[in-house]
Amino acid sequence: MEFKVLSTCGEARYGKLKGTHGETETPCFMPVGTLGAVKGVTWKNVKEMGYSLVLSNVYHLYLRPGLEVIEEAGGIHSFTGWKDLILTDSGGFQVFSLGSLMKLTEEGVEFCSHLDGSKHFFTPEFVIEFEERIGVDIGMVLDECTPYPATYDYAKHSMERTLRWAKRSIEARTTDRTALFGIVQGGVYEDLRLKCVEEITRLPFEGFAIGGLSVGEPKEEMYRITRLVAPNLPSDKPRYLMGVGTPEDILEAVEAGVDMFDCVMPTRNARNGTLFTSYGKVNIKAAKYKKDFTPLDPNCDCYTCRNFTKAYLRHLYVSREVNSVILNTIHNLHFYAKLMEGIREAIKEGRFAQFKEEFLRKFRGEGS
Amino acid sequence: MEFKVLSTCGEARYGKLKGTHGETETPCFMPVGTLGAVKGVTWKNVKEMGYSLVLSNVYHLYLRPGLEVIEEAGGIHSFTGWKDLILTDSGGFQVFSLGSLMKLTEEGVEFCSHLDGSKHFFTPEFVIEFEERIGVDIGMVLDECTPYPATYDYAKHSMERTLRWAKRSIEARTTDRTALFGIVQGGVYEDLRLKCVEEITRLPFEGFAIGGLSVGEPKEEMYRITRLVAPNLPSDKPRYLMGVGTPEDILEAVEAGVDMFDCVMPTRNARNGTLFTSYGKVNIKAAKYKKDFTPLDPNCDCYTCRNFTKAYLRHLYVSREVNSVILNTIHNLHFYAKLMEGIREAIKEGRFAQFKEEFLRKFRGEGS
Repeated sequence: MEFKVLSTCGEARYGKLKGTHGETETPCFMPVGTLGAVKGVTWKNVKEMGYSLVLSNVYHLYLRPGLEVIEEAGGIHSFTGWKDLILTDSGGFQVFSLGSLMKLTEEGVEFCSHLDGSKHFFTPEFVIEFEERIGVDIGMVLDECTPYPATYDYAKHSMERTLRWAKRSIEARTTDRTALFGIVQGGVYEDLRLKCVEEITRLPFEGFAIGGLSVGEPKEEMYRITRLVAPNLPSDKPRYLMGVGTPEDILEAVEAGVDMFDCVMPTRNARNGTLFTSYGKVNIKAAKYKKDFTPLDPNCDCYTCRNFTKAYLRHLYVSREVNSVILNTIHNLHFYAKLMEGIREAIKEGRFAQFKEEFLRKFRGEGS
Repeated sequence: MEFKVLSTCGEARYGKLKGTHGETETPCFMPVGTLGAVKGVTWKNVKEMGYSLVLSNVYHLYLRPGLEVIEEAGGIHSFTGWKDLILTDSGGFQVFSLGSLMKLTEEGVEFCSHLDGSKHFFTPEFVIEFEERIGVDIGMVLDECTPYPATYDYAKHSMERTLRWAKRSIEARTTDRTALFGIVQGGVYEDLRLKCVEEITRLPFEGFAIGGLSVGEPKEEMYRITRLVAPNLPSDKPRYLMGVGTPEDILEAVEAGVDMFDCVMPTRNARNGTLFTSYGKVNIKAAKYKKDFTPLDPNCDCYTCRNFTKAYLRHLYVSREVNSVILNTIHNLHFYAKLMEGIREAIKEGRFAQFKEEFLRKFRGEGS
């Protein structure tokens, strides 16, 4: 993997990331394709919107369709038909979300499948092996995702285990065709976060992620930790804020020097009828749109906005038509793609702060 | 509306149908867009497959989004964003499917909404008014859809009412921008069918449909009645076999002189994981496809077959991903489009019987 920062604007960075299967400009947003598909849109749609890096998930792919199927298909790219970059989250977040269905030891984590209750065991080494064998461009290490709230002691031990697992992950690597990112934990405790940064950046990872945020903490906490951690990560490596977020969150984090994002928000919200527009969020099922024959966002040139009205989108949503999912997802992912494009242009042109302010003023102004 | 038969091959006809919003070659298959959307595909997909005529449904559109919304949008084309031909079924079939929630009188039919139980009343005149006001290209009259089985007397009275309603429908017309098709009923009784043909073809309809088939009767009954009725309908007007059907059914009916078809089969089957291929039907959830890394149909050039394997389609289906619906529907509708294209070419080239035989030999040969 290669990564180059090409321009900066304050802490905000514009760059290019090149992996085994393609390249992307940064800051970038990764559409979430948990099971090897971005729900509601075809790869053709995803690519046409300008995305060349998507996220998938080891935990989910391990359960379905399983390592054997993906490997025999020739890897995750052959299996899914997505020809560009793929990053996989380790599944740590999913496993730790299982609560009582999960048992943590120093060796790894035992968990029961959310599908059939069957028992499985993930070690840091297994996650690396899985990611390398399915041939992702970027793999994330298995970490212990500290929940919120957590006591100082809990967060400390959890961060220390994450560090020990990070070392084991590095030792388990067998190829550089799959780049590997380390993850910074430490909860909302600044000294723990800085300690983790100090230790983990000694390891030869190709990039670093900020984990354990967007797990229920107040926004200010997320911003505070991001602003603390991001600038302390190596400037020549990509920085990835996991599971984030809203357009506001992304703008805040870019300002702190983050390069990569992923979030289910544009796709999940699309399915729930919540649409992002330049003038704020729109709840398309609202009765006021029943006879609103204007486009969702007149400033948007996506397929949905060019061809359909709010009234039609509302009709599809309230009628529970699958086409509601399709058209809403096309729009929301297009919106995120354009947001990231705007961010990159603004950084290149040295006007990121102004871009952020203008975007937010409009976005917060007329929401519904 | 204009219709011209341009070639024949036995009873089979190749023709062109021109309506207010476009034209289509016949024999044609109409994808079903009950609520103003073909479930699982965008209009762009539908158009790219070669379809220029889709079917929608008065009963469903009347309930959601309702006449007022569609009319204020400027009609069904403006509302849905589909720019080509639209035919609406009257909803008679849906209403009669409601059973005890429906009360039939000479004046019309009272029914309770399947959505909220609210009471409504359809008359033949109201259906025409609805179709004209939403601006469909072809409207179907309200008929009494005779169920199967039905006694001779029931079928006779039902057919006679359909004729009386057909006359009222003709009298209710106010524009020729919406063409109107009459419907032949009469159950499986040949004399009733012929009587209905004789009477209804005296009325100035732009086309005629064969109704009351594909309602549970044996295939041979459907074919027998189709072969009896179709050739007795006026040769200069389009003939439409409602709610049909499988590829076999369509080939049989084209051979009998039918020009138009509609059926939920390609779209509904897609959602259920049943896919049409040149070598028969494929149940994509079958375990044997788990590691089948070949395309669904190597003879198919649809987006799904060009880019994905059976193993991936199976994975999406068993994981209940919405993308399963999308990719399966793209394939099945593409398959039907290609079938109709093949049929039209064969008729033009005077080799329909041969086409039918070859298609069926292959289709029946290796199904799963």
